[in-house]
Amino acid sequence: MPYFDAASSLPLHPVARQALLAALDEGWADPARPHREGRRARMLLDAARETAAEAVGCRPDELVFTSSGTAAVHAGVAGALRGRRRAGRRLLVSAIEHSSVLHAAEAHERAGGEVRELPVDRAGRVSAEEYAAELARGGVALACLQSANHEVGTVQPVAATAAGCAEAGVPLLVDAAQSLPWGPVEDGWSLLTASAHKWGGPSGVGLLAVRKGVRFAAPEPADEREAGRAPGFENIPAIVAAAAALRAVRAEAEAERARLAPLVDRVRTRVPELVPDVEVVGDPAHRLPHLVTFSCLYVDGEALLHALDTEGFAVSSGSSCTSSTLTPSHVLRAMGVLSEGNVRVSLPPGTGEAAVDRFLEVLPGVVERVRGAVTGGSPGAPASPASSGPAAPEGLTVDARGRRCPVPVIELAKAIPGVPVGAVVTVLADDEAAALDIPAWCEMTGHTFEGADGHAYRVRREPGAAPD
Amino acid sequence: MPYFDAASSLPLHPVARQALLAALDEGWADPARPHREGRRARMLLDAARETAAEAVGCRPDELVFTSSGTAAVHAGVAGALRGRRRAGRRLLVSAIEHSSVLHAAEAHERAGGEVRELPVDRAGRVSAEEYAAELARGGVALACLQSANHEVGTVQPVAATAAGCAEAGVPLLVDAAQSLPWGPVEDGWSLLTASAHKWGGPSGVGLLAVRKGVRFAAPEPADEREAGRAPGFENIPAIVAAAAALRAVRAEAEAERARLAPLVDRVRTRVPELVPDVEVVGDPAHRLPHLVTFSCLYVDGEALLHALDTEGFAVSSGSSCTSSTLTPSHVLRAMGVLSEGNVRVSLPPGTGEAAVDRFLEVLPGVVERVRGAVTGGSPGAPASPASSGPAAPEGLTVDARGRRCPVPVIELAKAIPGVPVGAVVTVLADDEAAALDIPAWCEMTGHTFEGADGHAYRVRREPGAAPD
Repeated sequence: MPYFDAASSLPLHPVARQALLAALDEGWADPARPHREGRRARMLLDAARETAAEAVGCRPDELVFTSSGTAAVHAGVAGALRGRRRAGRRLLVSAIEHSSVLHAAEAHERAGGEVRELPVDRAGRVSAEEYAAELARGGVALACLQSANHEVGTVQPVAATAAGCAEAGVPLLVDAAQSLPWGPVEDGWSLLTASAHKWGGPSGVGLLAVRKGVRFAAPEPADEREAGRAPGFENIPAIVAAAAALRAVRAEAEAERARLAPLVDRVRTRVPELVPDVEVVGDPAHRLPHLVTFSCLYVDGEALLHALDTEGFAVSSGSSCTSSTLTPSHVLRAMGVLSEGNVRVSLPPGTGEAAVDRFLEVLPGVVERVRGAVTGGSPGAPASPASSGPAAPEGLTVDARGRRCPVPVIELAKAIPGVPVGAVVTVLADDEAAALDIPAWCEMTGHTFEGADGHAYRVRREPGAAPD
Repeated sequence: MPYFDAASSLPLHPVARQALLAALDEGWADPARPHREGRRARMLLDAARETAAEAVGCRPDELVFTSSGTAAVHAGVAGALRGRRRAGRRLLVSAIEHSSVLHAAEAHERAGGEVRELPVDRAGRVSAEEYAAELARGGVALACLQSANHEVGTVQPVAATAAGCAEAGVPLLVDAAQSLPWGPVEDGWSLLTASAHKWGGPSGVGLLAVRKGVRFAAPEPADEREAGRAPGFENIPAIVAAAAALRAVRAEAEAERARLAPLVDRVRTRVPELVPDVEVVGDPAHRLPHLVTFSCLYVDGEALLHALDTEGFAVSSGSSCTSSTLTPSHVLRAMGVLSEGNVRVSLPPGTGEAAVDRFLEVLPGVVERVRGAVTGGSPGAPASPASSGPAAPEGLTVDARGRRCPVPVIELAKAIPGVPVGAVVTVLADDEAAALDIPAWCEMTGHTFEGADGHAYRVRREPGAAPD
């Protein structure tokens, strides 16, 4: 049963499992105690710190273990902002950071700070020049940039951005949660965060590295654990396992890159050939080796996930209709790409060709079935025009208010053949995803998005554009 | 090799180990994901919450898992204070809370809030009446009281204090870290915190229960995990193990109480008989079944710990000379009891008579040896008077500045026979512990503590008091 949601969480690496079992026996005591059991725990903790620091590329005394990647980000952002209060209250983040960074930014804003979200291009990549331009405006306490995106796999220009930060004398926090198992982060970072369960370590362990010389004032309340930067009793067995797993996956990284990158290439190439009306998103060149994301028109993302799950494939989605959320992923929004029918495939180490081939075999039928259930049978080209009779020369208004994605886009696709070339279809839609998906639909089909006025989206029919 | 530091941390309970191993295979995925692996993780998390809630005595939707007991306390205190900002900014805590509570209180104070530390008696017990009197002054957002003390084992009047809080309409947060394995907390609490590695669960798991109806605004940044109260990826294998261990230790609690309480009684009775100049501290009646603390005059706490460690006994100490700290434990200070030569014995489940008997056999020799090393051979009655020749009728000044505990008290004991009955020995000492230990020495020996003026402590020699 292929699990293709590696970017969300990985099962425990065998090396981590072994290390965890050993450390459960040896590392349960309080490392702050001077007795035998305490000293043993302390030694394990110190050794794990050495291992992790080597993989990160920092000194052991620059690195602390936190209770999660999220805790590392929250502590890192808050600590750097506090340490640099005198330098200013501005915080720069990219628009496609992990939610933990954005939550930290929101907290900063609510506390009276200023946050500037830097945009990305359609490939999900930031511009080092835009960071530099923002830095030049002054008053920046901290800049944040992920090393690679968790939803679309785009790798960011860390070194170039870091160079700009260094010039401005501003620390750069790099959330390396997705890339750290693949190799060290490009030079120049000031703070670095990561999460062990993303590389086959146990959950409950994050990393926060703060370069010597970076001003840092740990958020309160604090205690004496982990250099005062991560309060609470150290989770030593899990820390030992996390460090062992990181070393192990690094040793295997080249082989896994060679194995997974061609499989991801195959998905990137084949999916648009096999499934009509699909957009592969994310940077085609600068990207993680194991992750690919695509979006399918006229499909409900949640229905697609469930249908794939039934076929035995565990994937993820940034669509708005999945589980707890009613808005599309902030990453897809910032990129301005289609969000409906969104699927993220992230391959765990060891994934074989056969599993990926089977996925490619199953996917077209699954999409067709789900589309059929929504559109009434005919995928891509919706079944029947919404307006019967002759084409309305004055244009047409389609009311899709109160209906969730992908219905507004489906209704638009149904309506467009009912108006003459050059006329406008206005879609009334209050689902947030429409703001993303209607322009994306236009981009994919060749019709012209004329703009939106509140919940009214105007689309002009172009000659030769599909469905026609 | 007996480990007598259960109150600090316990090895993993066998039931927890089994549960952890099973949950490592089943519970590593993201419980927020709708796929098969995610649903499996979610089911494990839900079941663990049911189990833990039953042991705590609350509804499952009132309980979240945090990354440690400390994290639970920090979130609980901050969340309740934020939720009740309109009610006031005063926070009541006892002077002998766990450091995590006191750190949260310090953070509140630095943020402009007001903190009132309620005193304890010499047995380490708070007064519900004093809580009520403070509540009557108004403006209290939150009151905190541990269920039992971690250093001296004193059990607190939770129900009586809670009744006063209820009357005043103020929520009571109970840190139940030490008592939860022994049974539910007395009725009336509004928020409850605990830590799994204290009951044989793994480290990395805390509990925070917040009763329905209690105003609570989670501290920021937050995320969508654990009802918005504990950010970061859930540590499900550890949570499952923690819940299983809690159920298991509860099932064994009566048997362990019957086993350990008589052993602790034996230590309480025998130590003062076997070792001269010892004070057993903590409430003789209201106390945890597995924990006893005593302090030995004329001994360096750290030396005592190391000597006991060499004999194979792992214990803890609240003395000022241990490891990282140069001040005596805040608990002993608040109680006003002797801090030098402090030893906490906390027995893990399953401790046998033989181990305790061996401890009682070894202890007198160890104390004698350590005392000999410090005082020059004669324990209790120090070797030679500091002043030679006839007793100084005008009194005597002993300069112990720059010298660490237990030296100031040893110098005092040496000096006292050198002055006539009724005369005063003044000890100059800048070690913080002297403020605690010189009055405690007077209480134990029968001499009169006349007070202190800065670093000058005045002691009047009484007739018939030891050493004489």
